[in-house]
Amino acid sequence: MDKKALYALSYGVYVVTTWDNGRPTGCTANSAMQITSSPATIAVSVNRDNYTNGVIAESGHFAVNVIAEDSDPTVIGRFGFFSGRDTDKFDGVPYSVKGAMPVPDTACAYVCCKVVDKMETSTHTVFLGEVLDAGVVGSSRAPMTYAYYHNVIKGKTAKNAPTYQGD
Amino acid sequence: MDKKALYALSYGVYVVTTWDNGRPTGCTANSAMQITSSPATIAVSVNRDNYTNGVIAESGHFAVNVIAEDSDPTVIGRFGFFSGRDTDKFDGVPYSVKGAMPVPDTACAYVCCKVVDKMETSTHTVFLGEVLDAGVVGSSRAPMTYAYYHNVIKGKTAKNAPTYQGD
Repeated sequence: MDKKALYALSYGVYVVTTWDNGRPTGCTANSAMQITSSPATIAVSVNRDNYTNGVIAESGHFAVNVIAEDSDPTVIGRFGFFSGRDTDKFDGVPYSVKGAMPVPDTACAYVCCKVVDKMETSTHTVFLGEVLDAGVVGSSRAPMTYAYYHNVIKGKTAKNAPTYQGD
Repeated sequence: MDKKALYALSYGVYVVTTWDNGRPTGCTANSAMQITSSPATIAVSVNRDNYTNGVIAESGHFAVNVIAEDSDPTVIGRFGFFSGRDTDKFDGVPYSVKGAMPVPDTACAYVCCKVVDKMETSTHTVFLGEVLDAGVVGSSRAPMTYAYYHNVIKGKTAKNAPTYQGD
């Protein structure tokens, strides 16, 4: 098996946010996709070791925030390589509340969801969310692709990511 | 709700193939993503109205074939806008068998999976597949992104797609 084939799948770069008893938190993700058109639902794969996983399960809500290509890449690292367990992920990260969810200013679009189902796998939970609200922020900003993150920004993949293949 | 925000999510362009009692069949898809790293699993969202859905459920296997940017777009249309119920989708489409699955020659990578779980939604089934085999075909070929399909090829979205938003 040539696992490099898995790199041929295309993704965006997202920060999945939620409310931890009134405090915003979240984690970086790439595995998010629309599942149904009407009603619109989105699935996202979140490692069970991620603090955000339990918070989404508890709160029943999450937002998929689309990171723009022109975003400061340190935001991706902040949400991807630290834990909300012992870090205030939003400390120093400007955000506003849209669709009742925390949306970092660096997002060019957001999709707010209510968890309607989930599928547990060996290491990750696939949360299925019905879209309650969605919006575009700064219509001229291009969404960052996972390929751009790797090839242009030279970003790394966190150990908890579905797409992690070793250092 | 601004549904245009959903367009900010990034995808590839795939043909999901399977065996229909020894006959290869399949359908175009964009909603496919890796769910876990080790063992590697992939999820794909397939409309229950798609003939391919029932065939995957029956056969228990599917392959996600990554369509290359330089592919003949009529292949995407053939797999996306006709039904395997009354069409031999592979008629005139050269393919070979890799990892025991039908892989169209136009694919630049393939990921062969065994169904290990599924989640039913209002209209689509999310098949979770454990990766049994995977390979890259022609390492210099770029995977087609869904954005390229829409913006450069001016491709349309099939009614059964998770990302369909009307004509």
